[in-house]
Amino acid sequence: MTPPHDRVRAIVWREDALELLDQRLLPSETRYQRSTTVAEVAGAIRGMVVRGAPAIGIAAAYGVVLAARARYAENPNRWGVLIGEDLGLLAASRPTAVNLVWALRRMERAMAEVSGDPVEGLLAEARAIHEEDIAANRRMGELGAALLDEGGAVLTHCNTGSLATGGYGTALGVIRRGYEKGLIERVYADETRPWLQGARLTAWELVRDGIPVTLLADAAAAALLRRGEVHWAIVGADRVAANGDVANKIGTYQLAVAARYHGVRFMVVAPTSTVDMSIASGADIPIEQRAAEELLTLGGQQVAAIGVEAWNPSFDVTPAALVDALVTERGVVLAPDAEKMARLMAGA
Amino acid sequence: MTPPHDRVRAIVWREDALELLDQRLLPSETRYQRSTTVAEVAGAIRGMVVRGAPAIGIAAAYGVVLAARARYAENPNRWGVLIGEDLGLLAASRPTAVNLVWALRRMERAMAEVSGDPVEGLLAEARAIHEEDIAANRRMGELGAALLDEGGAVLTHCNTGSLATGGYGTALGVIRRGYEKGLIERVYADETRPWLQGARLTAWELVRDGIPVTLLADAAAAALLRRGEVHWAIVGADRVAANGDVANKIGTYQLAVAARYHGVRFMVVAPTSTVDMSIASGADIPIEQRAAEELLTLGGQQVAAIGVEAWNPSFDVTPAALVDALVTERGVVLAPDAEKMARLMAGA
Repeated sequence: MTPPHDRVRAIVWREDALELLDQRLLPSETRYQRSTTVAEVAGAIRGMVVRGAPAIGIAAAYGVVLAARARYAENPNRWGVLIGEDLGLLAASRPTAVNLVWALRRMERAMAEVSGDPVEGLLAEARAIHEEDIAANRRMGELGAALLDEGGAVLTHCNTGSLATGGYGTALGVIRRGYEKGLIERVYADETRPWLQGARLTAWELVRDGIPVTLLADAAAAALLRRGEVHWAIVGADRVAANGDVANKIGTYQLAVAARYHGVRFMVVAPTSTVDMSIASGADIPIEQRAAEELLTLGGQQVAAIGVEAWNPSFDVTPAALVDALVTERGVVLAPDAEKMARLMAGA
Repeated sequence: MTPPHDRVRAIVWREDALELLDQRLLPSETRYQRSTTVAEVAGAIRGMVVRGAPAIGIAAAYGVVLAARARYAENPNRWGVLIGEDLGLLAASRPTAVNLVWALRRMERAMAEVSGDPVEGLLAEARAIHEEDIAANRRMGELGAALLDEGGAVLTHCNTGSLATGGYGTALGVIRRGYEKGLIERVYADETRPWLQGARLTAWELVRDGIPVTLLADAAAAALLRRGEVHWAIVGADRVAANGDVANKIGTYQLAVAARYHGVRFMVVAPTSTVDMSIASGADIPIEQRAAEELLTLGGQQVAAIGVEAWNPSFDVTPAALVDALVTERGVVLAPDAEKMARLMAGA
């Protein structure tokens, strides 16, 4: 096992700026992109330099620090008003993951408490959000791994590891802890078209950790599950509604349907910052549509026939009825529904 | 509508040689590869210059003509023995599609009937196989389209059109005829990783025909079906077992599971040359595993993390229980099973 301190940090505050490991370039290149303005941070979120629901929440929190620094320099008395535009810019950078909104609300509460130069206080809050996310991942890793049976394989979709979070990972945190405990023999990873988060990011993280990982085409998942080797499908989430419906990377719903059909259990791992109690069900979660080019081109080269249209939603909604276990840092909800979710969130 | 004579011919016998439209280069380049020897034909099948179950059967039939010409020149008395090696080479070029074996058996029967120089007689038989396949496609197009309801959309996987057959197509033949009759408003096409037959080939054929086509990531299919716009999923087959189980392009099974879950009907369109009554069920169909590189690289560039393994079966098996209609040129079998398949094939 690679010791935890060797794990990659995708989000780093260094020399008064935010440095983001550019996930568009992985695995062929490990390069950090430096942001000194909030506009750069919003652009990095929109352009997927940083992605993964918890990670974009953390990046946005640091973005607020940069915004506050600039607005305070612009006008020390009115910075708290002027920054409203910056918060709106960050909030609009990606629509589906609610962690972004959650992190901005926390930063707003911190803004209300600082006096004078806000930078130090807000940086402390952003760092707290970051560190709490890592701690939540560790806790979820323990709780999720406790659900695993001995032996067998698990299947995951997209990337939910150190790159998608403050560090360690949600679904990948459970997988890391499960492997450490000897409960997982092999990880199957969907390549996760169109952005290839599985092939490029999850495979990269697991190979670095020395965890056996096998890549497959997304459409091959059902054929794999039919073989009986996989005991759990384990995924993350971008937003969980009040009834337990889960928005996550496109393909998650198809995997949940296939898992249920084969009697393979389906685990969603997400911190409570991903839960949006203001949204009754998954039907109300805004689903980001991304550019057709993600499907029509590869590495800048046109692969699809000229003239074809594309449907490219970045997320889908898995109904709570298909979720066997929702793992949060506050505890595990088996077969989530509105009542159980309310109880979980009330326990704050 | 593009008139049928404008449709692409992927397999052409011209000036005593076999010319195959190189499907590895589509849609960016339309180039024919010329084969004058059986080894070249076997190589073209193995390397997927030509693909699609009916198309590789037809290509193999023309390959037998080339083999017979060379063996007859080598030894006019023993060519029928010497050619055995060539038949074995063709038969081994791809393992899953049974049309290859079926076409070789037909050519062997024709070999037994020719005397003297076999080329003319065998060429006539190869041409008959080719023309009969187009006629079968036309017939299946009519029979399959008759099952469609008015309006709505259909979803297809892989490529089953003019490129995959002698011409016109199996599942795509049904879609062409259905669109012509005003029964289909839009075709959704899975991009079909890893080889992207949907993005590269199906989209290309449908755009040429002026049929509205929307591409989607394979993993997005369930989210699409949930919307209720798609009435039928329509696919081809590489081998149908005696009990109606269907081997087809990887991802077909996952699509069949998703279709059943959403109450979307599932249609398999395949000529009886694809039916293998010697195989009791899908469990006995040999499934070709292809190179990991298909998943790990794109256009020669490594995309996946170095060190990751890959599981890359080229086909999967959909149990007959998930098939609502099997359309052949001899008729439609609703909810296929062993008894109905035996009745269909006995009606030869």
